[in-house]
Amino acid sequence: VHVADLPTPALVLDADALAANLATMATACPGGRLRPHVKAHKCTALAAEQARYGHTTFTCATPREAAGLAAAGIGDDLLIANEVVDPARLRMLAEAAERVRVTIAVDSAETVAAAAAAGLRDVLVDVNVGLPRCGCAPDDAGRLADLARRAGLTVRGVMGYEGHLMGVVERVERSAALERSVGALVAAHAEVGGDIVSTGGTGTYDLHDDRVTEVQAGSYALMDTHYARLGLPFVQSLFVVGSVVSVSPQWAVADVGLKALGMDHGNPSIDGAAVRFCSDEHVTFTAHDGRPRPRVGDRVRVVPAHCDPTVAMHDQVWLLRDDEVLERWAIDLRGW
Amino acid sequence: VHVADLPTPALVLDADALAANLATMATACPGGRLRPHVKAHKCTALAAEQARYGHTTFTCATPREAAGLAAAGIGDDLLIANEVVDPARLRMLAEAAERVRVTIAVDSAETVAAAAAAGLRDVLVDVNVGLPRCGCAPDDAGRLADLARRAGLTVRGVMGYEGHLMGVVERVERSAALERSVGALVAAHAEVGGDIVSTGGTGTYDLHDDRVTEVQAGSYALMDTHYARLGLPFVQSLFVVGSVVSVSPQWAVADVGLKALGMDHGNPSIDGAAVRFCSDEHVTFTAHDGRPRPRVGDRVRVVPAHCDPTVAMHDQVWLLRDDEVLERWAIDLRGW
Repeated sequence: VHVADLPTPALVLDADALAANLATMATACPGGRLRPHVKAHKCTALAAEQARYGHTTFTCATPREAAGLAAAGIGDDLLIANEVVDPARLRMLAEAAERVRVTIAVDSAETVAAAAAAGLRDVLVDVNVGLPRCGCAPDDAGRLADLARRAGLTVRGVMGYEGHLMGVVERVERSAALERSVGALVAAHAEVGGDIVSTGGTGTYDLHDDRVTEVQAGSYALMDTHYARLGLPFVQSLFVVGSVVSVSPQWAVADVGLKALGMDHGNPSIDGAAVRFCSDEHVTFTAHDGRPRPRVGDRVRVVPAHCDPTVAMHDQVWLLRDDEVLERWAIDLRGW
Repeated sequence: VHVADLPTPALVLDADALAANLATMATACPGGRLRPHVKAHKCTALAAEQARYGHTTFTCATPREAAGLAAAGIGDDLLIANEVVDPARLRMLAEAAERVRVTIAVDSAETVAAAAAAGLRDVLVDVNVGLPRCGCAPDDAGRLADLARRAGLTVRGVMGYEGHLMGVVERVERSAALERSVGALVAAHAEVGGDIVSTGGTGTYDLHDDRVTEVQAGSYALMDTHYARLGLPFVQSLFVVGSVVSVSPQWAVADVGLKALGMDHGNPSIDGAAVRFCSDEHVTFTAHDGRPRPRVGDRVRVVPAHCDPTVAMHDQVWLLRDDEVLERWAIDLRGW
């Protein structure tokens, strides 16, 4: 099967680019130094590839992601790097914990109580390291760890996500700002105890020293135009292939719209063209001067501005080598 | 079942608000004057409600939407208001056309040929009325209609989408700008022939005169903060219910993130609070002064900035009366 035979819009992965990204990361953060974040790809087949590269611990954003990995038998240590208070979803996690070690983040008395009530055993204390989102104040982490231990939970350590730094373009600035986040996390860890200090993402995967025990990167496998600005050694492997459905003298339109693309980081990109705007089912673009004018029926590769929500809009991804379709992988960890 | 028992994030529809919107529109555009656009809701159960209010013709953006309506036996005249060149998807449409009348938009020799090759019988000539997207130049419409007739297709008339005007906030400005679009469409219709002049959306549903035979509005049933700016007589019926999973002195975090919300129109809104930002699985917000501080476990209703892509991220929507769950409707027309 050739990419030209796929129904469009089609989410595709360049197999060689993916392999290069997985290899680069496995060298920089081998084995358990990386806890790959499956929220980026929501795909057990891709998680299995990451396991082949030596990573058998995984980070999840949703109970569904963890339950899906557990059911597929992928990974031996799953972290839900997120607070969950929903009893139904906590039950799903407790079931997964019968098959594989499941650890959940807690940042309050309420989330400690919810984890214990659901029968979960392992937690990390989630520490706010500067992003205005989840995580307790660093100086409250010790108290929460004590609370969790009194509730019968095993406190494995701390986590903190420096998401506010992930998009800082200059590496030296990113690294300098990181020191404050890591300092807060390490100070909290001293009060909490446990073996794990978990943090980081694709933008900071190689900026951490040994005070951090594991990095939670996920986007590195796929990449997007937002991360591309950082000059990382990862290449774009994820695209949405569209068909040109309409052309006019000033622009062309392909069938890749905002229902097929995460739009929170803005418009996608098309090589050799300026993207004008996206609507529900369309991207309107204009080829740069000197490039051939698109024709109806042409295929175009659209590069998402944000990979994670883009993947989450699709049922499947097609693995390609050049233009040949190698495999179909289900995006089977969608939902919550 | 109470809304507090739903797993979150949960897409919900207020049944009374929905009924009010359907009634208001059915009065303004009764029967075939409205060809409801199912791309807004992607839900056969909701389309069946629209049929109960008297509308039995439907607009679709994707072949999957039309095939799903046909399979469910909803509607007697389905329009794909979009160009399709993908042979697999055109075959899906031709199959649907064995059960119900299916009409597809064409705007080029290539799309005419693709429709004819797939065995489709009915087309509308899609005319560009000012939005830089699909549609032929108005003075090319007659030539395309002739081409389609020579290919054995029935040309039912014209369509044109004035999407560039849908967000013009002031009604008088919107109405004035509309005249140019409608003029182009009517001029094209004079060259094309046929019974149908199809156009419009929620922002212009009551601004058209009898030169237009039908209006393609869809968002009116659900609404969002973007359309709310227009002062239309439709009320918000669609929400995403989240659980507060984390609180700090300055903000709270609920589990409704950008994988549960269409983000192309910006951040969602929460009554009584300022939304700071969304990340994959979270919305960070701050309650206004004088409002109670959120607590972990509280439920919040998040109002999407753009309803169509929001719905397309969910498997199901829960129909509510006040906080009681009446029904679960599948979002069964997702995908392409």
